[in-house]
Amino acid sequence: MLEVLDQVRAGALSPADAADRLAELPYAEIAHAVGSTMIDHHRELRTGVPELVFGAGKTPEQIAGALRELARRAGGAIATRVDPDKAAALRALVPELAVHDLARIAVLGARAARPAAAPIAVVCAGTSDLPVAEEAALVAEFLGAPVIRIHDVGVAGIHRLLARLDAIRGAAVIIAVAGMEAALPSVLGGLVDQPLIAVPTSVGYGVSLDGLVALAAMLASCAPGIAVVNIDNGVGAAVAAVRIARLAARAPEAAR
Amino acid sequence: MLEVLDQVRAGALSPADAADRLAELPYAEIAHAVGSTMIDHHRELRTGVPELVFGAGKTPEQIAGALRELARRAGGAIATRVDPDKAAALRALVPELAVHDLARIAVLGARAARPAAAPIAVVCAGTSDLPVAEEAALVAEFLGAPVIRIHDVGVAGIHRLLARLDAIRGAAVIIAVAGMEAALPSVLGGLVDQPLIAVPTSVGYGVSLDGLVALAAMLASCAPGIAVVNIDNGVGAAVAAVRIARLAARAPEAAR
Amino acid sequence: MLEVLDQVRAGALSPADAADRLAELPYAEIAHAVGSTMIDHHRELRTGVPELVFGAGKTPEQIAGALRELARRAGGAIATRVDPDKAAALRALVPELAVHDLARIAVLGARAARPAAAPIAVVCAGTSDLPVAEEAALVAEFLGAPVIRIHDVGVAGIHRLLARLDAIRGAAVIIAVAGMEAALPSVLGGLVDQPLIAVPTSVGYGVSLDGLVALAAMLASCAPGIAVVNIDNGVGAAVAAVRIARLAARAPEAAR
Amino acid sequence: MLEVLDQVRAGALSPADAADRLAELPYAEIAHAVGSTMIDHHRELRTGVPELVFGAGKTPEQIAGALRELARRAGGAIATRVDPDKAAALRALVPELAVHDLARIAVLGARAARPAAAPIAVVCAGTSDLPVAEEAALVAEFLGAPVIRIHDVGVAGIHRLLARLDAIRGAAVIIAVAGMEAALPSVLGGLVDQPLIAVPTSVGYGVSLDGLVALAAMLASCAPGIAVVNIDNGVGAAVAAVRIARLAARAPEAAR
Amino acid sequence: MLEVLDQVRAGALSPADAADRLAELPYAEIAHAVGSTMIDHHRELRTGVPELVFGAGKTPEQIAGALRELARRAGGAIATRVDPDKAAALRALVPELAVHDLARIAVLGARAARPAAAPIAVVCAGTSDLPVAEEAALVAEFLGAPVIRIHDVGVAGIHRLLARLDAIRGAAVIIAVAGMEAALPSVLGGLVDQPLIAVPTSVGYGVSLDGLVALAAMLASCAPGIAVVNIDNGVGAAVAAVRIARLAARAPEAAR
Amino acid sequence: MLEVLDQVRAGALSPADAADRLAELPYAEIAHAVGSTMIDHHRELRTGVPELVFGAGKTPEQIAGALRELARRAGGAIATRVDPDKAAALRALVPELAVHDLARIAVLGARAARPAAAPIAVVCAGTSDLPVAEEAALVAEFLGAPVIRIHDVGVAGIHRLLARLDAIRGAAVIIAVAGMEAALPSVLGGLVDQPLIAVPTSVGYGVSLDGLVALAAMLASCAPGIAVVNIDNGVGAAVAAVRIARLAARAPEAAR
Amino acid sequence: MLEVLDQVRAGALSPADAADRLAELPYAEIAHAVGSTMIDHHRELRTGVPELVFGAGKTPEQIAGALRELARRAGGAIATRVDPDKAAALRALVPELAVHDLARIAVLGARAARPAAAPIAVVCAGTSDLPVAEEAALVAEFLGAPVIRIHDVGVAGIHRLLARLDAIRGAAVIIAVAGMEAALPSVLGGLVDQPLIAVPTSVGYGVSLDGLVALAAMLASCAPGIAVVNIDNGVGAAVAAVRIARLAARAPEAAR
Amino acid sequence: MLEVLDQVRAGALSPADAADRLAELPYAEIAHAVGSTMIDHHRELRTGVPELVFGAGKTPEQIAGALRELARRAGGAIATRVDPDKAAALRALVPELAVHDLARIAVLGARAARPAAAPIAVVCAGTSDLPVAEEAALVAEFLGAPVIRIHDVGVAGIHRLLARLDAIRGAAVIIAVAGMEAALPSVLGGLVDQPLIAVPTSVGYGVSLDGLVALAAMLASCAPGIAVVNIDNGVGAAVAAVRIARLAARAPEAAR
Repeated sequence: MLEVLDQVRAGALSPADAADRLAELPYAEIAHAVGSTMIDHHRELRTGVPELVFGAGKTPEQIAGALRELARRAGGAIATRVDPDKAAALRALVPELAVHDLARIAVLGARAARPAAAPIAVVCAGTSDLPVAEEAALVAEFLGAPVIRIHDVGVAGIHRLLARLDAIRGAAVIIAVAGMEAALPSVLGGLVDQPLIAVPTSVGYGVSLDGLVALAAMLASCAPGIAVVNIDNGVGAAVAAVRIARLAARAPEAAR
Repeated sequence: MLEVLDQVRAGALSPADAADRLAELPYAEIAHAVGSTMIDHHRELRTGVPELVFGAGKTPEQIAGALRELARRAGGAIATRVDPDKAAALRALVPELAVHDLARIAVLGARAARPAAAPIAVVCAGTSDLPVAEEAALVAEFLGAPVIRIHDVGVAGIHRLLARLDAIRGAAVIIAVAGMEAALPSVLGGLVDQPLIAVPTSVGYGVSLDGLVALAAMLASCAPGIAVVNIDNGVGAAVAAVRIARLAARAPEAAR
Repeated sequence: MLEVLDQVRAGALSPADAADRLAELPYAEIAHAVGSTMIDHHRELRTGVPELVFGAGKTPEQIAGALRELARRAGGAIATRVDPDKAAALRALVPELAVHDLARIAVLGARAARPAAAPIAVVCAGTSDLPVAEEAALVAEFLGAPVIRIHDVGVAGIHRLLARLDAIRGAAVIIAVAGMEAALPSVLGGLVDQPLIAVPTSVGYGVSLDGLVALAAMLASCAPGIAVVNIDNGVGAAVAAVRIARLAARAPEAAR
Repeated sequence: MLEVLDQVRAGALSPADAADRLAELPYAEIAHAVGSTMIDHHRELRTGVPELVFGAGKTPEQIAGALRELARRAGGAIATRVDPDKAAALRALVPELAVHDLARIAVLGARAARPAAAPIAVVCAGTSDLPVAEEAALVAEFLGAPVIRIHDVGVAGIHRLLARLDAIRGAAVIIAVAGMEAALPSVLGGLVDQPLIAVPTSVGYGVSLDGLVALAAMLASCAPGIAVVNIDNGVGAAVAAVRIARLAARAPEAAR
Repeated sequence: MLEVLDQVRAGALSPADAADRLAELPYAEIAHAVGSTMIDHHRELRTGVPELVFGAGKTPEQIAGALRELARRAGGAIATRVDPDKAAALRALVPELAVHDLARIAVLGARAARPAAAPIAVVCAGTSDLPVAEEAALVAEFLGAPVIRIHDVGVAGIHRLLARLDAIRGAAVIIAVAGMEAALPSVLGGLVDQPLIAVPTSVGYGVSLDGLVALAAMLASCAPGIAVVNIDNGVGAAVAAVRIARLAARAPEAAR
Repeated sequence: MLEVLDQVRAGALSPADAADRLAELPYAEIAHAVGSTMIDHHRELRTGVPELVFGAGKTPEQIAGALRELARRAGGAIATRVDPDKAAALRALVPELAVHDLARIAVLGARAARPAAAPIAVVCAGTSDLPVAEEAALVAEFLGAPVIRIHDVGVAGIHRLLARLDAIRGAAVIIAVAGMEAALPSVLGGLVDQPLIAVPTSVGYGVSLDGLVALAAMLASCAPGIAVVNIDNGVGAAVAAVRIARLAARAPEAAR
Repeated sequence: MLEVLDQVRAGALSPADAADRLAELPYAEIAHAVGSTMIDHHRELRTGVPELVFGAGKTPEQIAGALRELARRAGGAIATRVDPDKAAALRALVPELAVHDLARIAVLGARAARPAAAPIAVVCAGTSDLPVAEEAALVAEFLGAPVIRIHDVGVAGIHRLLARLDAIRGAAVIIAVAGMEAALPSVLGGLVDQPLIAVPTSVGYGVSLDGLVALAAMLASCAPGIAVVNIDNGVGAAVAAVRIARLAARAPEAAR
Repeated sequence: MLEVLDQVRAGALSPADAADRLAELPYAEIAHAVGSTMIDHHRELRTGVPELVFGAGKTPEQIAGALRELARRAGGAIATRVDPDKAAALRALVPELAVHDLARIAVLGARAARPAAAPIAVVCAGTSDLPVAEEAALVAEFLGAPVIRIHDVGVAGIHRLLARLDAIRGAAVIIAVAGMEAALPSVLGGLVDQPLIAVPTSVGYGVSLDGLVALAAMLASCAPGIAVVNIDNGVGAAVAAVRIARLAARAPEAAR
């Protein structure tokens, strides 16, 4: 921007043209079309997080193209919601791809320089919640945060959770993943003092309403300070947690 | 019924008339109109539980009349959902009435002979849930069951619940009352082996949807075997629990 | 756990105290991983009911492993929501498995010692509700309760229900299974004095909303004391009913 | 309009043809403004039912004006949803008005000539449903149909309903009014062969959702042939039933 | 019933046994098991309408068995919701079956004696609503009512409807079938004086919510006296209309 | 903006400072705080429509202040959702205010220069819809468009609508206001070729769901090209219609 | 119809009066059946827009027949919601068809004479919204309006939108297409002064509720004057926009 | 508790071990009853945040008692959801109370020692959202975090938001408060790299559904990493933000 204004001062650019340039600048300069998909390389500058390819509703070709364009610039790229069929097709297109079946995630290369981040605990209520928990964990690791995985600590067996509290307290931020009645964050929220991101899952049937009840129960929790993301949104939880974990990593000693 | 059939055999009643009488018998014989309200004295014979006067949508005069007619027959009667204004008007009409303000309950006299019942624990998550919990407790006591009251053991402070487990285990049946995300029954359901009736309350705001989320969360619980009643329905929970507690009371020693 | 038992053998701990200690033991010590599924052998000690394998969302291999691990310890194990394809695959893996097609249930072996339980009536409104009714019946039998099956007594032909009342009254607890408008529990609730667990089914179309209306109608019933479980949740109804039936079985004579 | 009648007088148009012409005449010619309310005198010619004044959202002055204009032409008029305050104000404006408090209905005069109609049974589940049932009954009577009132026959005491079946069978059409789980029409629908109009009421709380569950339960009924109107819509049920009862009244003997 | 009571008077039956017999009589005597499906031959005596086989959720074998058992007694039988695959399988099992593809209906034989019924108009808004309209028409014809079919008269081209009014007025009852915003019954309700049964269809997308909006719009109609059945419930509309049309058929001349 | 850039070229402003100024400019320069309410005088430049004061949730003092500040600049200002109590308080504060009771609107002064606009027809289904219709009409007139008012043309009396079609066709744009089942726009949409804005109202009860069904029915309309605004949102409809009417006014002859 | 035209030829009717008469002519005279689908050739006379074939729920044969009949009269015809399988079948039936895969649209021929229309901007938030945006764009072009396509300007990268504002301002009307939280119309509505039609898409998951949240967010927008169509309803948006764009095209100079 | 501390004094327990023990201590030992309200002094040890008194549903006496008990121990206490009537009664009971009318908050005293926290930006879309924004701001300040208030930056005037970006970037965490379509967090989420907590408000009408649409729109946002709390839940947002801000405050330099 200063460059444009310098050109104005130098007389190389008329004020009217500069106004046009300024309005066009931020996006146009950094966007590169890959087929019909626009890649926003500028996003990381603005938000600290690069574009993460959302695989649902994209063809294998579109996903492969986007991953390649992003990795070309940043060393690594990641795609989520890559179901088994799409994963097979992707592997044929990009043999060097690493695919995580359970989490439906594909990773290409590795990003070179990432801001430091304190550890994130990904705590999961039941085995059916694992795909979402792993999505959160892998995205957090891709963004540079170490992850502590705590599985199968649903509240119907509260001792399981209490037995893992020390491990959970070792993290700077907690992601709690649960479906059905989703009571895990409420119980956890009364036991820890770290920031807590809750992810409802669509696990359950009947009155679970595909995760809407888990979502509402988390939002209505009697434990204050729980922040919630969309149903099955492991990616969103990871991005929120990493932003927090980076703040914590700037501290002189570990977060706790 | 046998009486009618005996009359037929004795020729005192024609088969056609008997058919009419049989069809009319059960209700007509025992119903007595009190103003526009019909009192079903027969109900206790069929279901083990007398008619409980639901005060909402009835005038003080109607409630007073129903209580008097029921108490005349059975020694005692109870009305629920009696709000403060109605309670004041009722007290003027029936001075000997005992009114429980918090639970919005009015009791007239005491029922003489009630089946024995094992103790019922009424467990309550927060202080805002107390009116519903007390409604359940008072109705259960009116029907003859001893009640163990456990208050303020919401899951956001799990130690409070664990500290009271022994007292809870002393009951044959448990009524768990909770609003907001209503995680209490899930946690409790994984810790005890008694029948567990869950009552969602309309406590909460925003996404709590006046208790619908608490209700759904209880129904979607990961702890199997939790049975649920309508929102704020302390009466229904008490009736369900008393039916169970009576079964337990027939055992040679106390339920646990 | 062994340590506790050693102390008992050494006389340093009374059996009663040991039982208390065992009930409190954290989950981690007694859990055994079977692939990615954790088996909670401790659950039966705490809640009186062993882990029941929920087959939906698990692979045949996971179900087979869980059944084998559970049966190894307890003599028998049961899996629910086993659809036809999964059942075929399971049979190939575990030839000695007994599969109930209609109820989508697979049973391996038989549990040796189960607490006594009084009879449970499983009452079903229509033939489309049979899969859920059978799920409830088979789980109840697996847990040790005798089951009285009453089918096709929907309220649109009320005589069918009245004709079966004596059989229903022979049980200590009733499970009523109905879809669509789910009026069966309301009618039944006014005719019997036993505990009544209602199971809504997803049978119906259009405004039935996949069972939500049946569920709500049961909860809003004008007959007090009906306790309700999640849509299609035959398992939950069975567990709730068995807990009650065990209380009744401790009585000197049969429940009724 | 006069033109048409002139042509009839002149013999240029047969009465039958004139009736056809009149039925087609646009609204504008026959409407008379009463303040800001337009009165559709033509409606009865087209639909067989005169305009019924819906009192909710109208001022006492508007209701009084509409009743007077309608009664001036037809001898009588009726207003519904007249709450107690409005009724008092109305009585001050129109002293000769007959007000039915429970049904919130005001009637002015009586319509002289009404088509014959067979009897209609208005069957009501609970005392809380009476206001809606009486609205239906009074509107049906206003439109010329004899009404058989059957109250307090909710399905939680099924004998009450069975005892009144003969009376119900004496009608040509049945209006069944019920709130909460609204099982009455389902039971009735399996016992009678007459047309059956079901009216859900907003009676209930919690999961009743102000009558939505009663409405849905009626629509999802397992008894085929039940037709349903809006929640608390006694007027609509009466109009539907009267249209049917008029068809029946044209028969050589009473409908049954 | 009188027969049983006569036996009591004759001493051939003890009162106690008679009580048992009476309770068992109505249903047990007339039910015949066909596989797991119970056929209620008694239903037509009670409700005027025989059992109609609901094909959804039944196997071709079950449907074939039920149709055969019903037709054996009554001459003819009908099954609804028979999708193309099921229809093919059915035709293989019952070659003499008549299948109506669009309406998804299968008819076996023809019922000999049916009560007379006045004509029913089946009025349909759009071509996508035709399957439901035809289901209603064919069931009405099966039950003995002549049907007048009026198609494609949606309100977005109001002239189409006005042009067919005379034909519609020739019927004693009207069934109006519409999806999306379902305005047809409102417009029709202001133009005719016959009973009007509205059937919402699941036609539409997005905010149509699979027919829920069409249903609600019909119930909320500003035209009084419209009675509504469940979404896509052509059968229910036909049964309701036939009950009305039979009343009309008893009149000395045709209904209009 | 050019002014800032000119200063840069003249050296009177450093590029860095200019960047700051540019970012701050658009809003800061034209906003004037009136108590805690910010007035956005810039809005009309951007969107062609000045700020319209939404009275709900504002105190009379806040409304008066906002009206005065807006009128000071533009000659006139308008506030909506001014209920009777607020209107009385407002009149005390601003005696020269013109208040429209039915439409709950207050107007201060008159705006001097407004872009020309073609006529808008405001068509209203029932008298209960009039407040919303008048809100739309008065806001449209305030913004400079002539309004043609067509009232009480609900579809239950289709002749009323057909009789007014010529008047409606005289407008360039149509606003159709309706509650309950809201069929008016569908019928109108098939009869005219102008842009059509539909406004659902909260008129109705029970299943009307406070206007949600009217809204959904309009959106699901079978007549293509109907655009819809929020429930009771007369203001939004007026703004949308005026934007269109201004386009039409630029034409050499009247829109039709 | 011929009769009217004969009268015109005979001079008994002026062309203007004949046009009026033709507009009133009932549908039946001008409709031509194509199989079971009725084609409404009259629609364009009334509404300015010809019938657009909605392909969902129609067979390829029905679509082909409708397109041919419409094109025969008007030169061109268009079908929407033609999914890939249907498109392949259609191409086999009508080789000269132009199919747009992304937009699921098939066009046959080209309409000869269409009213002039000003340019329409179709603005799209994300790449997943493109199918709906293209449906709108192609239908608008089919109806004769030039279209300006602006893609991938979602608000999470606000600079992208600001950079394209000049292009957007070049249109007379704007169609804004967005899914998920659908914030694009709110932002746009505060930046432009043209009529703005918003189209919610079903893009999103979990709490997005298949586009219902996008729809509601658009309707609840804080920017006044946004008019909304059904979810994924590109056709409706195009028809609404074209009606507006035709008004604008009658102006002496371009719309802005 | 004293026992633990005695052991520390005696050197039998290291302070670190004692801290662990204290964190595990059951609730019962440290709770003190104040009337019927239990105060959980232990909560701050476990969760870092003291009990905040939720005023809704509590009497002024209960609020006053709770504030006094909490302030006695910690120096200061805060109550939320204190409406004007309750505030007046509270002031009479506790004259030294500081009441914030707009935010409905009452503060007693000031907490002495609070952990350091980095600045929090509270960003608010419209003036109607201010009460919730102030609730968040005051609670955050009570817990020790400096607050940057940014008001009236709704997206319908995007320049207002862009002009305040530098101020927003000065905070370590952002709380974004918005009602209606709630687009603010989406736009903000694409412009900043800090953790972002979104608070939906119940501001809006009609389809806003009392904040449910704002909530869902925030959760469905296309900008990843936004974490959301319950509707109008300023308290929850503050607690979540403070937990994050404390992590940031431990860093050697300011968060940005």
